[in-house]
Amino acid sequence: MKKFAIILSGCGVYDGAEIHESVMTMFAIKNAGADYMIFAPDIDQMHTVNHLNGSPAGETRNVLAESARIARGNALPLSQYNADDYDGLILPGGFGVMKNLCNFVVKGYDCHVNTDVEHAVVTTYEAGKPIGAMCIAPVLIAKLIPGAALTIGTDSKTAVDIENLNCEHVFTDKGEVCIDRENNIFTTACYMQDADIVEIAHSTQNLVNSILESIV
Amino acid sequence: MKKFAIILSGCGVYDGAEIHESVMTMFAIKNAGADYMIFAPDIDQMHTVNHLNGSPAGETRNVLAESARIARGNALPLSQYNADDYDGLILPGGFGVMKNLCNFVVKGYDCHVNTDVEHAVVTTYEAGKPIGAMCIAPVLIAKLIPGAALTIGTDSKTAVDIENLNCEHVFTDKGEVCIDRENNIFTTACYMQDADIVEIAHSTQNLVNSILESIV
Repeated sequence: MKKFAIILSGCGVYDGAEIHESVMTMFAIKNAGADYMIFAPDIDQMHTVNHLNGSPAGETRNVLAESARIARGNALPLSQYNADDYDGLILPGGFGVMKNLCNFVVKGYDCHVNTDVEHAVVTTYEAGKPIGAMCIAPVLIAKLIPGAALTIGTDSKTAVDIENLNCEHVFTDKGEVCIDRENNIFTTACYMQDADIVEIAHSTQNLVNSILESIV
Repeated sequence: MKKFAIILSGCGVYDGAEIHESVMTMFAIKNAGADYMIFAPDIDQMHTVNHLNGSPAGETRNVLAESARIARGNALPLSQYNADDYDGLILPGGFGVMKNLCNFVVKGYDCHVNTDVEHAVVTTYEAGKPIGAMCIAPVLIAKLIPGAALTIGTDSKTAVDIENLNCEHVFTDKGEVCIDRENNIFTTACYMQDADIVEIAHSTQNLVNSILESIV
Protein backbone atom coordinates (compact mmCIF):
# COMPACT_ATOMS: atom_id res chain seq x y z
CA MET A 1 0.00 0.00 0.00
CA LYS A 2 1.33 3.43 -0.99
CA LYS A 3 1.70 5.85 1.91
CA PHE A 4 1.79 9.62 1.81
CA ALA A 5 3.00 12.18 4.31
CA ILE A 6 0.76 15.25 4.55
CA ILE A 7 2.21 18.45 6.02
CA LEU A 8 -0.42 20.62 7.76
CA SER A 9 0.15 24.17 8.99
CA GLY A 10 -2.57 24.52 11.64
CA CYS A 11 -6.36 24.36 11.45
CA GLY A 12 -8.23 27.09 9.59
CA VAL A 13 -7.70 28.94 6.31
CA TYR A 14 -6.70 32.34 7.75
CA ASP A 15 -3.96 31.25 10.18
CA GLY A 16 -3.41 27.57 9.44
CA ALA A 17 -4.16 24.77 6.99
CA GLU A 18 -7.24 25.11 4.80
CA ILE A 19 -9.58 22.56 6.35
CA HIS A 20 -11.52 21.45 3.25
CA GLU A 21 -8.35 20.94 1.22
CA SER A 22 -6.78 18.98 4.09
CA VAL A 23 -9.79 16.73 4.67
CA MET A 24 -10.36 16.15 0.96
CA THR A 25 -6.69 15.21 0.54
CA MET A 26 -7.04 12.62 3.30
CA PHE A 27 -10.25 11.35 1.68
CA ALA A 28 -8.72 11.19 -1.82
CA ILE A 29 -5.74 9.19 -0.55
CA LYS A 30 -7.82 6.65 1.38
CA ASN A 31 -10.39 6.45 -1.41
CA ALA A 32 -7.60 5.52 -3.83
CA GLY A 33 -6.58 2.63 -1.55
CA ALA A 34 -3.51 4.38 -0.18
CA ASP A 35 -2.73 5.62 3.33
CA TYR A 36 -1.32 8.75 4.98
CA MET A 37 0.31 10.18 8.08
CA ILE A 38 -0.14 13.80 9.17
CA PHE A 39 2.91 15.88 10.08
CA ALA A 40 3.27 19.48 11.26
CA PRO A 41 6.08 21.56 12.75
CA ASP A 42 5.97 21.74 16.55
CA ILE A 43 6.10 25.56 16.69
CA ASP A 44 3.83 28.46 17.62
CA GLN A 45 1.61 29.86 14.90
CA MET A 46 2.58 33.33 13.60
CA HIS A 47 -0.71 34.53 15.08
CA THR A 48 -4.31 33.48 15.62
CA VAL A 49 -7.14 34.90 13.50
CA ASN A 50 -10.80 35.03 14.52
CA HIS A 51 -12.32 33.32 11.47
CA LEU A 52 -15.70 34.99 11.99
CA ASN A 53 -14.49 38.56 11.52
CA GLY A 54 -10.91 38.18 10.26
CA SER A 55 -9.36 40.09 13.16
CA PRO A 56 -6.23 38.92 14.99
CA ALA A 57 -6.99 37.27 18.35
CA GLY A 58 -4.54 37.78 21.21
CA GLU A 59 -3.60 34.18 21.85
CA THR A 60 -0.88 31.70 20.99
CA ARG A 61 -1.60 28.38 19.33
CA ASN A 62 0.76 25.55 18.40
CA VAL A 63 0.83 24.45 14.75
CA LEU A 64 1.15 20.74 15.56
CA ALA A 65 -1.60 20.74 18.21
CA GLU A 66 -3.99 22.62 15.91
CA SER A 67 -3.14 20.36 12.96
CA ALA A 68 -3.97 17.42 15.22
CA ARG A 69 -7.60 18.63 15.20
CA ILE A 70 -7.83 17.77 11.50
CA ALA A 71 -5.92 14.53 12.14
CA ARG A 72 -8.21 13.46 15.03
CA GLY A 73 -5.12 13.34 17.24
CA ASN A 74 -2.98 11.20 14.95
CA ALA A 75 -0.24 13.67 13.99
CA LEU A 76 3.55 13.64 14.32
CA PRO A 77 6.14 16.40 14.67
CA LEU A 78 7.57 17.14 11.24
CA SER A 79 11.07 16.68 12.67
CA GLN A 80 10.29 12.93 12.67
CA TYR A 81 9.59 12.80 8.94
CA ASN A 82 11.88 10.55 6.92
CA ALA A 83 11.46 10.53 3.15
CA ASP A 84 12.52 6.87 3.04
CA ASP A 85 9.30 5.88 4.82
CA TYR A 86 6.83 7.49 2.38
CA ASP A 87 5.94 7.33 -1.30
CA GLY A 88 5.22 11.03 -1.58
CA LEU A 89 4.67 14.30 0.26
CA ILE A 90 1.59 16.53 -0.02
CA LEU A 91 1.04 20.09 1.23
CA PRO A 92 -2.55 21.41 1.35
CA GLY A 93 -2.96 25.19 1.33
CA GLY A 94 -4.22 27.86 3.69
CA PHE A 95 -2.48 31.01 4.94
CA GLY A 96 -0.66 28.82 7.48
CA VAL A 97 1.67 27.75 4.68
CA MET A 98 2.76 31.37 4.20
CA LYS A 99 2.63 32.29 7.93
CA ASN A 100 3.80 29.17 9.78
CA LEU A 101 5.66 26.90 7.36
CA CYS A 102 7.54 29.96 6.14
CA ASN A 103 7.24 33.70 6.82
CA PHE A 104 6.43 34.80 3.26
CA VAL A 105 3.61 37.12 4.41
CA VAL A 106 6.18 39.13 6.38
CA LYS A 107 9.38 38.76 4.36
CA GLY A 108 8.18 38.03 0.82
CA TYR A 109 10.82 36.53 -1.49
CA ASP A 110 13.44 36.74 1.26
CA CYS A 111 11.33 34.56 3.54
CA HIS A 112 12.78 31.93 5.84
CA VAL A 113 11.36 28.43 5.49
CA ASN A 114 10.96 26.45 8.73
CA THR A 115 13.94 24.08 8.86
CA ASP A 116 11.79 20.95 9.32
CA VAL A 117 9.67 21.95 6.32
CA GLU A 118 12.76 22.65 4.21
CA HIS A 119 14.31 19.32 5.22
CA ALA A 120 11.11 17.39 4.41
CA VAL A 121 10.62 18.99 0.99
CA VAL A 122 14.26 18.91 -0.08
CA THR A 123 14.97 15.33 1.04
CA THR A 124 11.79 14.11 -0.68
CA TYR A 125 12.79 15.97 -3.84
CA GLU A 126 16.35 14.65 -3.71
CA ALA A 127 15.03 11.11 -3.22
CA GLY A 128 13.16 11.52 -6.52
CA LYS A 129 9.81 11.07 -4.80
CA PRO A 130 6.71 13.06 -5.82
CA ILE A 131 5.65 16.26 -4.06
CA GLY A 132 2.09 17.59 -4.30
CA ALA A 133 1.13 21.16 -3.35
CA MET A 134 -2.23 22.88 -3.53
CA CYS A 135 -3.64 26.39 -3.27
CA ILE A 136 -0.88 28.80 -2.13
CA ALA A 137 1.58 26.02 -1.16
CA PRO A 138 3.28 26.04 -4.62
CA VAL A 139 4.85 29.40 -3.60
CA LEU A 140 6.66 27.58 -0.79
CA ILE A 141 7.82 24.94 -3.27
CA ALA A 142 9.06 27.72 -5.57
CA LYS A 143 11.20 29.08 -2.73
CA LEU A 144 12.83 25.66 -2.21
CA ILE A 145 13.05 24.19 -5.71
CA PRO A 146 14.13 26.76 -8.33
CA GLY A 147 13.21 25.86 -11.88
CA ALA A 148 10.05 23.94 -11.03
CA ALA A 149 6.90 24.36 -13.14
CA LEU A 150 3.99 25.18 -10.83
CA THR A 151 0.41 26.47 -10.82
CA ILE A 152 -1.61 28.60 -8.48
CA GLY A 153 -4.44 28.81 -11.02
CA THR A 154 -5.10 32.19 -12.61
CA ASP A 155 -4.16 34.81 -9.99
CA SER A 156 -1.69 36.99 -11.89
CA LYS A 157 -0.05 38.58 -8.82
CA THR A 158 0.80 35.20 -7.25
CA ALA A 159 1.85 33.89 -10.66
CA VAL A 160 4.41 36.72 -10.75
CA ASP A 161 5.58 35.67 -7.27
CA ILE A 162 6.23 32.18 -8.64
CA GLU A 163 8.18 33.60 -11.60
CA ASN A 164 10.16 35.94 -9.35
CA LEU A 165 11.19 32.93 -7.28
CA ASN A 166 12.80 31.58 -10.46
CA CYS A 167 10.12 29.04 -11.28
CA GLU A 168 7.75 28.73 -14.23
CA HIS A 169 4.08 29.50 -13.60
CA VAL A 170 1.52 27.50 -15.60
CA PHE A 171 -2.01 28.94 -15.75
CA THR A 172 -4.67 26.28 -15.07
CA ASP A 173 -8.46 26.03 -14.84
CA LYS A 174 -10.35 24.74 -11.81
CA GLY A 175 -9.57 21.13 -11.02
CA GLU A 176 -6.57 20.90 -13.33
CA VAL A 177 -3.22 19.57 -12.11
CA CYS A 178 0.09 21.03 -13.29
CA ILE A 179 2.56 18.14 -13.59
CA ASP A 180 6.29 18.84 -13.69
CA ARG A 181 7.59 15.39 -14.66
CA GLU A 182 11.23 16.41 -14.54
CA ASN A 183 11.05 17.58 -10.93
CA ASN A 184 8.22 15.18 -9.96
CA ILE A 185 6.07 18.03 -8.62
CA PHE A 186 2.27 18.14 -8.85
CA THR A 187 0.28 21.31 -8.12
CA THR A 188 -3.39 22.34 -8.24
CA ALA A 189 -5.04 25.67 -7.41
CA CYS A 190 -7.99 24.62 -5.18
CA TYR A 191 -9.21 27.71 -3.24
CA MET A 192 -6.75 29.99 -5.08
CA GLN A 193 -9.65 29.84 -7.56
CA ASP A 194 -13.20 30.97 -6.72
CA ALA A 195 -14.09 27.32 -6.11
CA ASP A 196 -16.69 25.50 -4.01
CA ILE A 197 -16.16 22.40 -1.89
CA VAL A 198 -17.16 20.02 -4.70
CA GLU A 199 -14.46 21.54 -6.90
CA ILE A 200 -11.96 21.18 -4.05
CA ALA A 201 -12.82 17.49 -3.81
CA HIS A 202 -12.31 17.22 -7.57
CA SER A 203 -8.94 19.07 -7.50
CA THR A 204 -7.49 17.10 -4.61
CA GLN A 205 -8.63 13.81 -6.14
CA ASN A 206 -7.00 14.73 -9.46
CA LEU A 207 -3.79 15.64 -7.65
CA VAL A 208 -3.64 12.45 -5.59
CA ASN A 209 -4.57 10.22 -8.51
CA SER A 210 -1.99 11.91 -10.77
CA ILE A 211 0.70 11.24 -8.19
CA LEU A 212 -0.38 7.63 -7.68
CA GLU A 213 -0.42 6.98 -11.44
CA SER A 214 3.14 8.30 -11.62
CA ILE A 215 4.48 5.89 -9.02
CA VAL A 216 2.60 2.70 -9.90
CA MET B 1 -32.56 24.70 -4.74
CA LYS B 2 -32.95 22.98 -1.36
CA LYS B 3 -31.05 24.63 1.47
CA PHE B 4 -29.91 23.10 4.73
CA ALA B 5 -28.85 24.66 7.99
CA ILE B 6 -25.88 22.91 9.61
CA ILE B 7 -25.26 23.39 13.34
CA LEU B 8 -21.59 23.15 14.32
CA SER B 9 -20.25 23.01 17.87
CA GLY B 10 -16.67 24.24 17.42
CA CYS B 11 -13.73 22.84 15.45
CA GLY B 12 -12.19 19.54 16.52
CA VAL B 13 -13.55 16.20 17.68
CA TYR B 14 -12.54 16.45 21.36
CA ASP B 15 -13.97 19.88 22.23
CA GLY B 16 -16.01 20.87 19.19
CA ALA B 17 -17.51 19.61 15.94
CA GLU B 18 -15.92 16.56 14.31
CA ILE B 19 -14.14 18.11 11.32
CA HIS B 20 -14.40 15.22 8.83
CA GLU B 21 -18.13 14.75 9.48
CA SER B 22 -18.71 18.50 9.14
CA VAL B 23 -16.74 18.86 5.90
CA MET B 24 -18.24 15.72 4.38
CA THR B 25 -21.74 16.97 5.22
CA MET B 26 -21.02 20.23 3.40
CA PHE B 27 -19.61 18.26 0.47
CA ALA B 28 -22.56 15.84 0.34
CA ILE B 29 -25.06 18.71 0.29
CA LYS B 30 -23.30 20.65 -2.47
CA ASN B 31 -22.60 17.47 -4.43
CA ALA B 32 -26.34 16.70 -4.40
CA GLY B 33 -27.06 20.13 -5.92
CA ALA B 34 -28.32 21.67 -2.67
CA ASP B 35 -26.86 24.45 -0.54
CA TYR B 36 -26.17 25.12 3.16
CA MET B 37 -25.55 27.76 5.78
CA ILE B 38 -23.44 27.12 8.88
CA PHE B 39 -24.78 28.11 12.31
CA ALA B 40 -23.31 27.85 15.80
CA PRO B 41 -24.18 29.24 19.22
CA ASP B 42 -22.23 32.40 20.10
CA ILE B 43 -20.98 31.07 23.46
CA ASP B 44 -17.71 29.96 25.05
CA GLN B 45 -16.73 26.33 24.64
CA MET B 46 -16.96 24.20 27.80
CA HIS B 47 -13.17 23.89 27.56
CA THR B 48 -10.34 23.54 25.06
CA VAL B 49 -8.56 20.22 24.52
CA ASN B 50 -5.06 19.81 23.08
CA HIS B 51 -5.86 17.34 20.28
CA LEU B 52 -2.31 16.00 20.22
CA ASN B 53 -2.31 14.60 23.75
CA GLY B 54 -5.95 14.89 24.87
CA SER B 55 -5.16 17.14 27.82
CA PRO B 56 -7.24 20.23 28.68
CA ALA B 57 -5.59 23.49 27.60
CA GLY B 58 -6.05 26.57 29.80
CA GLU B 59 -7.73 28.84 27.28
CA THR B 60 -11.18 30.00 26.28
CA ARG B 61 -12.51 29.64 22.74
CA ASN B 62 -15.83 30.74 21.26
CA VAL B 63 -18.00 28.07 19.61
CA LEU B 64 -19.13 30.33 16.74
CA ALA B 65 -15.63 31.67 15.99
CA GLU B 66 -14.15 28.15 15.98
CA SER B 67 -17.00 26.79 13.85
CA ALA B 68 -16.24 29.60 11.40
CA ARG B 69 -12.90 27.88 10.71
CA ILE B 70 -14.74 24.96 9.11
CA ALA B 71 -17.09 27.43 7.37
CA ARG B 72 -14.22 29.55 5.97
CA GLY B 73 -15.73 32.54 7.78
CA ASN B 74 -19.28 32.14 6.48
CA ALA B 75 -21.13 31.27 9.70
CA LEU B 76 -24.05 32.84 11.55
CA PRO B 77 -25.05 32.95 15.22
CA LEU B 78 -27.59 30.19 15.84
CA SER B 79 -29.93 32.79 17.40
CA GLN B 80 -30.56 33.98 13.81
CA TYR B 81 -31.81 30.59 12.60
CA ASN B 82 -35.39 30.53 11.35
CA ALA B 83 -36.83 27.15 10.37
CA ASP B 84 -38.99 28.86 7.71
CA ASP B 85 -35.86 29.68 5.70
CA TYR B 86 -34.45 26.14 5.42
CA ASP B 87 -35.53 22.74 4.10
CA GLY B 88 -33.84 20.80 6.87
CA LEU B 89 -31.41 20.93 9.78
CA ILE B 90 -28.28 18.77 10.16
CA LEU B 91 -26.04 18.27 13.20
CA PRO B 92 -22.62 16.64 12.66
CA GLY B 93 -21.03 14.99 15.71
CA GLY B 94 -17.98 15.55 17.89
CA PHE B 95 -17.74 15.98 21.65
CA GLY B 96 -18.75 19.63 21.16
CA VAL B 97 -22.33 18.43 20.78
CA MET B 98 -22.23 16.99 24.30
CA LYS B 99 -20.04 19.77 25.77
CA ASN B 100 -21.15 22.97 24.04
CA LEU B 101 -24.59 22.41 22.49
CA CYS B 102 -25.67 20.80 25.75
CA ASN B 103 -23.84 19.82 28.95
CA PHE B 104 -24.49 16.06 28.78
CA VAL B 105 -20.87 15.19 29.66
CA VAL B 106 -21.34 16.94 33.01
CA LYS B 107 -25.02 16.45 33.81
CA GLY B 108 -25.98 13.31 31.89
CA TYR B 109 -29.72 12.79 31.38
CA ASP B 110 -30.49 15.96 33.37
CA CYS B 111 -28.43 18.05 30.98
CA HIS B 112 -29.40 21.53 29.89
CA VAL B 113 -29.59 22.13 26.13
CA ASN B 114 -28.41 25.54 24.91
CA THR B 115 -31.59 27.58 24.32
CA ASP B 116 -30.66 28.48 20.72
CA VAL B 117 -30.02 24.80 19.96
CA GLU B 118 -33.29 23.75 21.58
CA HIS B 119 -35.21 26.44 19.67
CA ALA B 120 -33.64 25.42 16.34
CA VAL B 121 -34.31 21.71 16.77
CA VAL B 122 -37.82 22.06 18.21
CA THR B 123 -39.08 24.65 15.71
CA THR B 124 -37.70 22.58 12.80
CA TYR B 125 -39.39 19.48 14.22
CA GLU B 126 -42.68 21.31 14.82
CA ALA B 127 -42.56 22.67 11.26
CA GLY B 128 -42.46 19.07 10.04
CA LYS B 129 -39.06 19.57 8.43
CA PRO B 130 -36.37 16.89 8.45
CA ILE B 131 -33.60 16.78 11.04
CA GLY B 132 -30.36 14.86 10.46
CA ALA B 133 -27.94 13.95 13.24
CA MET B 134 -24.69 11.99 13.08
CA CYS B 135 -22.23 10.36 15.47
CA ILE B 136 -23.13 11.33 19.07
CA ALA B 137 -25.61 14.07 18.07
CA PRO B 138 -28.62 11.68 18.20
CA VAL B 139 -28.27 11.77 22.00
CA LEU B 140 -29.04 15.51 21.88
CA ILE B 141 -32.05 14.80 19.66
CA ALA B 142 -33.22 12.16 22.16
CA LYS B 143 -33.14 14.77 24.92
CA LEU B 144 -35.38 17.11 22.88
CA ILE B 145 -37.71 14.75 21.00
CA PRO B 146 -38.95 11.87 23.18
CA GLY B 147 -40.22 8.89 21.24
CA ALA B 148 -37.87 9.29 18.29
CA ALA B 149 -36.17 6.26 16.72
CA LEU B 150 -32.44 6.94 16.52
CA THR B 151 -29.10 5.23 15.91
CA ILE B 152 -25.61 5.74 17.25
CA GLY B 153 -24.46 2.51 15.58
CA THR B 154 -23.53 -0.40 17.84
CA ASP B 155 -22.15 1.14 21.07
CA SER B 156 -24.32 -0.50 23.71
CA LYS B 157 -23.68 2.06 26.48
CA THR B 158 -24.77 5.00 24.32
CA ALA B 159 -27.68 2.95 22.99
CA VAL B 160 -28.84 2.63 26.61
CA ASP B 161 -28.51 6.42 26.98
CA ILE B 162 -30.85 6.83 24.01
CA GLU B 163 -33.36 4.40 25.55
CA ASN B 164 -33.13 6.08 28.97
CA LEU B 165 -33.99 9.38 27.29
CA ASN B 166 -37.27 7.71 26.24
CA CYS B 167 -36.33 7.09 22.62
CA GLU B 168 -35.91 3.89 20.64
CA HIS B 169 -32.38 2.90 19.69
CA VAL B 170 -31.92 1.10 16.36
CA PHE B 171 -28.63 -0.78 15.89
CA THR B 172 -27.04 -0.05 12.49
CA ASP B 173 -23.94 -1.04 10.52
CA LYS B 174 -21.39 1.41 9.13
CA GLY B 175 -22.87 3.78 6.58
CA GLU B 176 -26.50 2.90 7.33
CA VAL B 177 -29.08 5.60 8.03
CA CYS B 178 -31.84 5.14 10.60
CA ILE B 179 -34.95 6.84 9.23
CA ASP B 180 -37.80 7.74 11.60
CA ARG B 181 -40.48 8.68 9.05
CA GLU B 182 -43.05 9.63 11.69
CA ASN B 183 -40.78 12.21 13.33
CA ASN B 184 -38.83 13.02 10.14
CA ILE B 185 -35.50 12.31 11.83
CA PHE B 186 -32.48 10.80 10.06
CA THR B 187 -29.45 9.52 11.99
CA THR B 188 -26.18 7.78 11.12
CA ALA B 189 -23.31 6.62 13.33
CA CYS B 190 -20.21 7.96 11.50
CA TYR B 191 -17.26 8.01 13.95
CA MET B 192 -19.35 6.35 16.69
CA GLN B 193 -18.23 3.30 14.71
CA ASP B 194 -14.57 2.39 14.14
CA ALA B 195 -14.77 4.04 10.73
CA ASP B 196 -12.30 5.68 8.36
CA ILE B 197 -12.75 8.88 6.39
CA VAL B 198 -14.08 7.06 3.30
CA GLU B 199 -16.82 5.49 5.44
CA ILE B 200 -17.61 8.93 6.90
CA ALA B 201 -18.06 10.28 3.38
CA HIS B 202 -20.34 7.33 2.64
CA SER B 203 -22.42 7.82 5.83
CA THR B 204 -22.89 11.55 5.41
CA GLN B 205 -23.79 11.15 1.74
CA ASN B 206 -26.37 8.48 2.62
CA LEU B 207 -27.83 10.77 5.31
CA VAL B 208 -28.05 13.83 3.06
CA ASN B 209 -29.44 11.88 0.11
CA SER B 210 -32.03 10.16 2.32
CA ILE B 211 -33.23 13.53 3.55
CA LEU B 212 -33.32 15.02 0.06
CA GLU B 213 -35.29 12.04 -1.29
CA SER B 214 -37.82 12.55 1.50
CA ILE B 215 -38.48 16.19 0.60
CA VAL B 216 -38.45 16.07 -3.22
